[in-house]
Amino acid sequence: MTDVLREVAPDVVPAVLSGPSFAKDVARGLPTAVTLACEDMDLGEALAAAIATPTFRPYIADDLIGAEVGGAVKNVLAIGCGIIDGKGLGESARAALITRGFTEMTRLAVALGGRAQTVAGLCGLGDLILTCSSMASRNFSCGRALGEGRPLADVLAERRAVTEGVASAPAVAALAQKHRVDMPISQAIHDILSGERGVDEAIRDLLARPLRSES
Amino acid sequence: MTDVLREVAPDVVPAVLSGPSFAKDVARGLPTAVTLACEDMDLGEALAAAIATPTFRPYIADDLIGAEVGGAVKNVLAIGCGIIDGKGLGESARAALITRGFTEMTRLAVALGGRAQTVAGLCGLGDLILTCSSMASRNFSCGRALGEGRPLADVLAERRAVTEGVASAPAVAALAQKHRVDMPISQAIHDILSGERGVDEAIRDLLARPLRSES
Repeated sequence: MTDVLREVAPDVVPAVLSGPSFAKDVARGLPTAVTLACEDMDLGEALAAAIATPTFRPYIADDLIGAEVGGAVKNVLAIGCGIIDGKGLGESARAALITRGFTEMTRLAVALGGRAQTVAGLCGLGDLILTCSSMASRNFSCGRALGEGRPLADVLAERRAVTEGVASAPAVAALAQKHRVDMPISQAIHDILSGERGVDEAIRDLLARPLRSES
Repeated sequence: MTDVLREVAPDVVPAVLSGPSFAKDVARGLPTAVTLACEDMDLGEALAAAIATPTFRPYIADDLIGAEVGGAVKNVLAIGCGIIDGKGLGESARAALITRGFTEMTRLAVALGGRAQTVAGLCGLGDLILTCSSMASRNFSCGRALGEGRPLADVLAERRAVTEGVASAPAVAALAQKHRVDMPISQAIHDILSGERGVDEAIRDLLARPLRSES
């Protein structure tokens, strides 16, 4: 989005606010911590001080790309976590998907010029954990319906709100291909959403990959 | 534990198997992925091939310390997540605790000679996510009872199984102090368990820390 901002408002200094923060939690004054990324760290500090409250804590970073990539990829991975839940594959499998998905998210951010450290923060990992754990997430609940065997068109037809991950999945897959980043989980979710592979086939393919080094 | 192994069995090559894997999930053949760490990577590969099944996937790493630290610190942080749940502080706060706790876990592992990359894998982050999300975790449920206002002694008296995090918290706090690693969340949980600070006071102190750079 900061690329778009630079095109339409080139004189403006962009900042990114992102992190695990359900609106209802922030509104109720429950403790929340997010990332505020700005290349001008002095401005970032001033912005953070201006919007902070005793329970809403912005942590400062200077890596816009790292902060933006996490927010997009996490929606795709949350659909995958929903699928695992809908198919009843267990909490261990969900934790493995989040962890290996986090590795994919980090690889993509680094390939695009971001930093691994930023992705490990609230805007990346924090948001990923929240979105992948909660039925309140539209992406998670969409995946759950797919895992239960319902067709995507039916799931989307019942919704007024946008399920961001459905729109982000082809963009993430295209970026991964363009930058030659290995993202087998994100690709599998894209294939399921596009009808390229069925849920069972995609899971079978992931489990059939050769054993390898974790990093 | 590999320090102990080296003392009692100095001729043995140690390996560490750790990761998000509820025994019931593994036993039912649900998809599970874990870290197998061994300094001899050829032996690690052979071990992984020997214990892998179509649904149980060990990923290989060579960093024993990184693999061991995550498994200990995650139990302490899971108590913190339980406290947040018991006090009804919301899912956003829980995600923030896991993320900032992950940063503490990484700092400690690096100070002890491990690698950040290992901690970001299944043995660290993966196990942390699973333990911090599930009422099936003894540490999480212990924390929840504390968050609901019950005294620790009563909670532990009802249990036959060990709540590892209660034993690990003082060890983690001592290691953090010895190696001068900043671990405010782990310290707060230790203080709550030892009676040094109350739950409300510890939360108030964490929220009163100055705003700062995320990394």
